[in-house]
Amino acid sequence: MSKNLRLGAASIAFSQPLYIESAASIVSQKEADGPLGDLFDLVCEDPMFGCDTWESAESTLQKETATQAISKAGLSSEDIHLMFAGDLLAQTSATCFGSAGLGIPFYGLYGACSTIGEALSLGSLALTAGFGTRVLCATSSHFASAEKEFRFPLGYGNQRPFSATWTVTGSGACILSTSPPGEKAPLRSGKGCAAITGLTAGRVMDYGLRDSMNMGGCMAPAACDTIARSFSDFGRTPSDYDAVFTGDLGIIGQKILLDLLEEQNIRLSPIHKDCGILIYDDPSQDTHAGGSGCGCSAVVLASYILPKIVSGEWKRILFVPTGALLSKVSFNEGDSIPGIAHGVVIEHMEV
Amino acid sequence: MSKNLRLGAASIAFSQPLYIESAASIVSQKEADGPLGDLFDLVCEDPMFGCDTWESAESTLQKETATQAISKAGLSSEDIHLMFAGDLLAQTSATCFGSAGLGIPFYGLYGACSTIGEALSLGSLALTAGFGTRVLCATSSHFASAEKEFRFPLGYGNQRPFSATWTVTGSGACILSTSPPGEKAPLRSGKGCAAITGLTAGRVMDYGLRDSMNMGGCMAPAACDTIARSFSDFGRTPSDYDAVFTGDLGIIGQKILLDLLEEQNIRLSPIHKDCGILIYDDPSQDTHAGGSGCGCSAVVLASYILPKIVSGEWKRILFVPTGALLSKVSFNEGDSIPGIAHGVVIEHMEV
Repeated sequence: MSKNLRLGAASIAFSQPLYIESAASIVSQKEADGPLGDLFDLVCEDPMFGCDTWESAESTLQKETATQAISKAGLSSEDIHLMFAGDLLAQTSATCFGSAGLGIPFYGLYGACSTIGEALSLGSLALTAGFGTRVLCATSSHFASAEKEFRFPLGYGNQRPFSATWTVTGSGACILSTSPPGEKAPLRSGKGCAAITGLTAGRVMDYGLRDSMNMGGCMAPAACDTIARSFSDFGRTPSDYDAVFTGDLGIIGQKILLDLLEEQNIRLSPIHKDCGILIYDDPSQDTHAGGSGCGCSAVVLASYILPKIVSGEWKRILFVPTGALLSKVSFNEGDSIPGIAHGVVIEHMEV
Repeated sequence: MSKNLRLGAASIAFSQPLYIESAASIVSQKEADGPLGDLFDLVCEDPMFGCDTWESAESTLQKETATQAISKAGLSSEDIHLMFAGDLLAQTSATCFGSAGLGIPFYGLYGACSTIGEALSLGSLALTAGFGTRVLCATSSHFASAEKEFRFPLGYGNQRPFSATWTVTGSGACILSTSPPGEKAPLRSGKGCAAITGLTAGRVMDYGLRDSMNMGGCMAPAACDTIARSFSDFGRTPSDYDAVFTGDLGIIGQKILLDLLEEQNIRLSPIHKDCGILIYDDPSQDTHAGGSGCGCSAVVLASYILPKIVSGEWKRILFVPTGALLSKVSFNEGDSIPGIAHGVVIEHMEV
């Protein structure tokens, strides 16, 4: 096994790619009404997902999505050696009572809305280290559990400024494998499959912003830092990618990101996409700046991005989920809202 | 580089050990008054650590501990390629405003009081995968921020049952390296050093217990599962270890663990130690069942366990931090308290 090249201060290029064998996405009706509505595996019309509490609803959503990713690949939970998962709730309780209940050895993560990027990163590292041959990566968010966790009781009916994002009710899960997917695997086309070929680990960036209703602005500096370092570490430019996806900067965060990168002479606008902008149609859906939450980039990856890589329409993308690191306590105590973003290079692979 | 052997369903033996180059521990006066009081690097008499809030106090504690681990090794934060850290607070805010502020590329973790085991595990896997040559692993907890997060305002002065544990105010940090520590490194003796040679990933175990004042009972099944699987995966028995350390089961959890293992014909009592029992002297310190919190096993590892491995007094130990996966929301909604425990094999290495 050749040694993996560590390219720069915080990037790694894998000598053996990690294949994405299967992916699943489940959302609520709101996301199904958006532009990507036809692409999700399952839409649950009941926002309670048959449960009594918002937290249980999110746990059920996440566990069901993980189960779907496993069953779509024709596997059972015994075939998965490790799981990396997280969510937005305090003590990641949606995960602890969600997919963690599947009995798979489990490492819990917290990276705010960047968590699916962190899960794919650590899953890739574990497999590269030789710890098993298949890992499950999953995240979730729920509009109502997140509003309860971070902001106001829904019954208050408070006004949301136009810079606010709407937390996606959804969960995305992927199975990574050291082997290419078999011929009948869900993420394999006649032309090939999708694989992770490199990572850039995020650093916490804090520009001192304190507005929890403008999280795109809080996260944009972290996205800029990760994207610029990734280009530098891998010796690439935007022309080496078909698209660069940020997690959920929304329309305000996107503008800040593009301006910040322009200052570093990186012109990303022709290939930049943001999962938070893609998932809803504003103003018709009244979501304002876009979507957010741990589930946002995870469901867009599973439903929209991966199929285009598998088909060969896109040869290489950089996936950069972004997270705003706040709690209601830190916010109420007047702390700033630092951001973080983890970069994952995903490429089309012929098999 | 030889392939690492994946021994069982959730264990890995490293063909190249990961060396523990440096470790630091900082605690408050309460821990300094306990049996290990002379072993900590620093004792801060001010439980506010010079800050205005309990949360900022914990962040400052954790950041200072990480900084100490780095400086004890004669390094600066630029020498550390990745950081794995976490704590107990919602959205791991002690970490996000603590050591994450050091500017080191950062993966955030949540594993309740098992987090230092998770950090050492994922740090070892990242280095084995070739992602850098040095990682920092850090966790923290604070009695007052934890009581505020999970239980009652301190001012209520509520009675604590004898099964309750006392959250350690403390932070522990370790630096892992792919190379043996140099001759003047803090964790090197004339005889050798300490290194991680294997892992067993934890599974969530839920026996349906709902008593947040008896977390030892909630975590014991997870500790049993991890220890039994580790013995099985590595083909070892208790006689292959000088000691097996659980994180913070306390005196009630310890009894349950030993009983559960006895049912599997594993007699652990001669070599079992529990960080939560070691750190306080009860009843003189009025801590009841023992210590707990993300900082508990981390400071015991850094101050008490690692020096004995470095000196060669202990040749091999199994370190099994244990976590109780509850939030105040899940507890108040009547959910059970699942447990998790991650196993790390640490051995004396001649250099």
